[in-house]
Amino acid sequence: MIQQFKPITGALFSVSVNLILQTEDTMADRKQVIIDTDCGIDDAQAVMMALAAPNIDVLALTCVFGNAAVDHVCQNVLMVLDVCQRQGIPVFRGSSGPLVGAINPVSDHFGTDGLGDVIKDKDPRWEEKIQSEHAVNAMIRLVNENQKQISLVALGPLTNLALAVRLDPSFPQKLKDLFIMGGNMEGKGNLTLCAEFNFAMDPESAYIVLEEFLCTTYIASWEYACRNSLTWEFFEELINQDAPAAAFMKTITSKCRAYSKDAMKNKRDVYFGPGYVSYDAYAMAACIDPDVVLQSIECPVRVELQGALCRGMMALDRTNQLKKSHSVTVLTKCDVRKFSRLLLQSLRQPKK
Amino acid sequence: MIQQFKPITGALFSVSVNLILQTEDTMADRKQVIIDTDCGIDDAQAVMMALAAPNIDVLALTCVFGNAAVDHVCQNVLMVLDVCQRQGIPVFRGSSGPLVGAINPVSDHFGTDGLGDVIKDKDPRWEEKIQSEHAVNAMIRLVNENQKQISLVALGPLTNLALAVRLDPSFPQKLKDLFIMGGNMEGKGNLTLCAEFNFAMDPESAYIVLEEFLCTTYIASWEYACRNSLTWEFFEELINQDAPAAAFMKTITSKCRAYSKDAMKNKRDVYFGPGYVSYDAYAMAACIDPDVVLQSIECPVRVELQGALCRGMMALDRTNQLKKSHSVTVLTKCDVRKFSRLLLQSLRQPKK
Amino acid sequence: MIQQFKPITGALFSVSVNLILQTEDTMADRKQVIIDTDCGIDDAQAVMMALAAPNIDVLALTCVFGNAAVDHVCQNVLMVLDVCQRQGIPVFRGSSGPLVGAINPVSDHFGTDGLGDVIKDKDPRWEEKIQSEHAVNAMIRLVNENQKQISLVALGPLTNLALAVRLDPSFPQKLKDLFIMGGNMEGKGNLTLCAEFNFAMDPESAYIVLEEFLCTTYIASWEYACRNSLTWEFFEELINQDAPAAAFMKTITSKCRAYSKDAMKNKRDVYFGPGYVSYDAYAMAACIDPDVVLQSIECPVRVELQGALCRGMMALDRTNQLKKSHSVTVLTKCDVRKFSRLLLQSLRQPKK
Amino acid sequence: MIQQFKPITGALFSVSVNLILQTEDTMADRKQVIIDTDCGIDDAQAVMMALAAPNIDVLALTCVFGNAAVDHVCQNVLMVLDVCQRQGIPVFRGSSGPLVGAINPVSDHFGTDGLGDVIKDKDPRWEEKIQSEHAVNAMIRLVNENQKQISLVALGPLTNLALAVRLDPSFPQKLKDLFIMGGNMEGKGNLTLCAEFNFAMDPESAYIVLEEFLCTTYIASWEYACRNSLTWEFFEELINQDAPAAAFMKTITSKCRAYSKDAMKNKRDVYFGPGYVSYDAYAMAACIDPDVVLQSIECPVRVELQGALCRGMMALDRTNQLKKSHSVTVLTKCDVRKFSRLLLQSLRQPKK
Repeated sequence: MIQQFKPITGALFSVSVNLILQTEDTMADRKQVIIDTDCGIDDAQAVMMALAAPNIDVLALTCVFGNAAVDHVCQNVLMVLDVCQRQGIPVFRGSSGPLVGAINPVSDHFGTDGLGDVIKDKDPRWEEKIQSEHAVNAMIRLVNENQKQISLVALGPLTNLALAVRLDPSFPQKLKDLFIMGGNMEGKGNLTLCAEFNFAMDPESAYIVLEEFLCTTYIASWEYACRNSLTWEFFEELINQDAPAAAFMKTITSKCRAYSKDAMKNKRDVYFGPGYVSYDAYAMAACIDPDVVLQSIECPVRVELQGALCRGMMALDRTNQLKKSHSVTVLTKCDVRKFSRLLLQSLRQPKK
Repeated sequence: MIQQFKPITGALFSVSVNLILQTEDTMADRKQVIIDTDCGIDDAQAVMMALAAPNIDVLALTCVFGNAAVDHVCQNVLMVLDVCQRQGIPVFRGSSGPLVGAINPVSDHFGTDGLGDVIKDKDPRWEEKIQSEHAVNAMIRLVNENQKQISLVALGPLTNLALAVRLDPSFPQKLKDLFIMGGNMEGKGNLTLCAEFNFAMDPESAYIVLEEFLCTTYIASWEYACRNSLTWEFFEELINQDAPAAAFMKTITSKCRAYSKDAMKNKRDVYFGPGYVSYDAYAMAACIDPDVVLQSIECPVRVELQGALCRGMMALDRTNQLKKSHSVTVLTKCDVRKFSRLLLQSLRQPKK
Repeated sequence: MIQQFKPITGALFSVSVNLILQTEDTMADRKQVIIDTDCGIDDAQAVMMALAAPNIDVLALTCVFGNAAVDHVCQNVLMVLDVCQRQGIPVFRGSSGPLVGAINPVSDHFGTDGLGDVIKDKDPRWEEKIQSEHAVNAMIRLVNENQKQISLVALGPLTNLALAVRLDPSFPQKLKDLFIMGGNMEGKGNLTLCAEFNFAMDPESAYIVLEEFLCTTYIASWEYACRNSLTWEFFEELINQDAPAAAFMKTITSKCRAYSKDAMKNKRDVYFGPGYVSYDAYAMAACIDPDVVLQSIECPVRVELQGALCRGMMALDRTNQLKKSHSVTVLTKCDVRKFSRLLLQSLRQPKK
Repeated sequence: MIQQFKPITGALFSVSVNLILQTEDTMADRKQVIIDTDCGIDDAQAVMMALAAPNIDVLALTCVFGNAAVDHVCQNVLMVLDVCQRQGIPVFRGSSGPLVGAINPVSDHFGTDGLGDVIKDKDPRWEEKIQSEHAVNAMIRLVNENQKQISLVALGPLTNLALAVRLDPSFPQKLKDLFIMGGNMEGKGNLTLCAEFNFAMDPESAYIVLEEFLCTTYIASWEYACRNSLTWEFFEELINQDAPAAAFMKTITSKCRAYSKDAMKNKRDVYFGPGYVSYDAYAMAACIDPDVVLQSIECPVRVELQGALCRGMMALDRTNQLKKSHSVTVLTKCDVRKFSRLLLQSLRQPKK
């Protein structure tokens, strides 16, 4: 295992070089980021990746239902900020359910609380730490104050984003760019037969975002994550690092069914073989370092809104049959070495 | 004219009594109202009815796309307030399109500007008179400041209301009551084959409001309006009254196809016979004076979201097949004499 | 009650006159009929009405699933023919389920066997009495042998008819005319919230028939039947006549929930008030005697195929919004006296 | 021929061995086949492959609309039989359109007549050569006469098969097995964005067949064909063989846009790169020689019936989320050498 990862974490010299270059890059390419999240375990990982990245300023964390109820999501985000000692970043509560239709709670993926149901001593006064402004209004305000400066990274159902464009139709064009974890590109679903979790939880919002957010958009689909999975050996190395963030991740994944390495007949393993897949981190990594993406497809996409099997499925329109004027970047191949390095760094927090 | 209305306004004595009672009623039954409107000609009529009613305090007018683009709607509302010399009432701009899907502009009903395309000297500085707060946020703020006090009268597509419950899930329960012009009860549509204009323009929002607004709700459907139509003779009397409001109404209906009395093969005439139908005024009248409603059905309702013919259609569930816990009041029979009187009063503005 | 019906069954003299006239009519207006039926109790009534009518030659009875499984339907038809001593009419087995999708058996309406679950001594050798030719092929053959001569009366789901036009696209134009019991005209349903039983049981077939059967078509909708209901007193008179057919009807309605006069909160009573409604008989009566229909609407119609509430609903397109070239006759007002007389006659079989 | 095959089958010796084995196989594994076809160019190729196969007895060819109107399809099938001098095989006309909804003619794929619009001297008396029995009835009869003996190879929309199970619910269980060219497995469509031509032309029939044909079923999807394409060099070799069948194929592909090797931005090339793909031949080859299939997936499948993008799409249910009891064999990897050999043999007809 150690040998395996030598090339990634590298010798001291190469790391130094890398850090120097990264610092220079950071100057030129500093990014202001809002993270919209339904903070489950893999969101926590992705948020930590952003917090650890020297070139990223996290302006706000906006919460949305998804992996858990929005109140759990708020608490989870506060916990992650605590672990990383970054309590100064404001957290906003957003949508508690999908744009249309009833909430369909999902509790077996990352547990009821979204973080594996293992944390006992939760902060009873967490609500005081949540901003009073609604997440959607906060998004709109921040993006208006920092036009063309903000990268929005969306890790959950896209409800908050859909509401933002409804309240401010010019919201998308005032973004710098948008990174989405969600959707699919081969008709394979993980929640329903053909739809990915984040899109299936609110198909209308996914549809709206992909039709109306005409900004530069990157999509890390379910299949992208699965086809660029890491090994379970790497996962062990990752969570066994000596730092509070790694310890936190080890705790919350300790009883989580989704992080069981046993041969479950889950869809991911059936379709793509075994492996460790930290979904949201793929979108976050693309935002932090564009070089993490080795290949992608530029094309229009659309979300199917109807159907017993395909509601919420994303389709790529590579021959422009739909006559859409806007294309997005659908990620296909990841530099797993760079990605692994970002993961490893993310759990070495807080910086001493 | 006088003869014609004798039976309605009655002998001198009874009128006096009536006025006295009304004044007393007003004290006891004063209502705070927010009017959400896609201000076309019949909305203008309904707004004037509210402005003329002694027991109604209009707290705000919130605008929504529908009969015209939302910017036209804003201008139309300002014009109505000007005519009635009630410029102090704040006007808020709201949604410019439906919750899901593209705007499908309708321009032949009340003209492109929603008021018959006859007004030439429009205020070039109208935008300065619109509040900067978004209509949805204004609604939420006002309802939170006056909990259980506000009657919301919705005269257009229900997009603003749907967004309000998304941003504040407790919004509906903080309303006093809700009056909606929209939907249908016999499967007869006016925009599409089976759906009424306001619901067909945004079926998802209509669905959300009827599922999630668990407050006391009154629905004046298309068939209710059509089955309680007035005569074209009454219309002539109405608009020929000697007052600025009547003159304004006479102007905006002068070239409007919807107010042509010629035998057009429109659906209304085919289904219900000829007559003058001021749709939105039926919902407003029910808010101003409950006695205008002679009969109604209490039952759950639901909006169909799919289908080539029925998308946007409202269905009454009189045997509770859907197992919904919430019923609404679907109006069926109107006291047309009382209703006529409210109409006549509404165009005698401003009060001298 | 007797007084009430005196004018219908009349004095001896008027009956004689009537019979004489009817005999003359019969010569001029003799009709060849195929009855397609899902033989439940009201189908049995309608079939007996055809058998009793002096101007009707029943060429064949074709069976379809609906009120009961198709095998029950076949047995029921054979029983009705037995009761009326008309065993010579060939009976064909047809579709056992809808055109698309799974069979959704309905057993509480007329019982599991479709005839009230009261008949014990069923014929164990009934299958031998069913023709070996499939109902759909028999229909096609008979209509080709008697082009423009046959009236098709459809009393169940329209599956057999849809299959007939698929196997022989010219089938509809070779019919004389088509009478359908099914669909609705006010958006009120009896099986689902907005759809009538026969159409809801196979919406695709109803759609196909109403789009592709361009022959003269009469539709007796659910609301037509309900709005022209008879009294429960008449029902008592009807089944208490002294004849085998009346006795049979009395037996099969004896325990049937659908013929309970108790105030059930069924949709029919909620919408239309109490009354005896023999649905299928309304379509049959229109075929036997056009004068039974007092009013009708000529317009195109279409069946909604999608939706949670409206799938299977029929919509009238009275302003030709759908640009269809073909109109049907939607019955609206029935001569209940003539209709009552046909019912009474139908249960006085077999003729002595 | 020997030279020609050197690169594919290798040295002379191995060819001989192979031929001997094949002859022996033929004895043991003789197959009775009905081919249901919408005979376009690739169907013609597949039919010829069956006619050339020594182990295949073609009992009947049943025609269905698809690549062309069903009358063109009938003529095309007769032409293919003529070219191969196999006029004794009966040809039946079947469905002229989809099970539900209007025919949506497609004429630019293989031309209006389905065979490239290049054949001028068509047989004016072709209709006399078509059997009078309907294709669906013929299928049912033949399968009843040869229970568990017949392989059904379906190369077009599945309308005839769906009608067969409607008229005879036990039809599927009396088949030996079923080979289908159609559907997809990666959400990539060729007719619509996400649906393959044969399934998209009649989604309801595809749905019915995949739900109700519980016999052994093999599916050669669009992606299977595309991922196992041959080179355009092979295509040249194929059609330039010295035999009437090859000459016929050369003629009908001479002006066909679908056989242009120019870099068109068609979906196939965009998704899978350039290559010659004779779709229907992949299903036929799997029937003729099971060894042509190197890999496949056993799982339940279902067709999506709704949606703007996905109607007609086939989805694989590899984790049995739909709880279906029946699995099919979805082909994934083809032995292209064996497949090429079958293609080459198919155009060396008639045998001298």
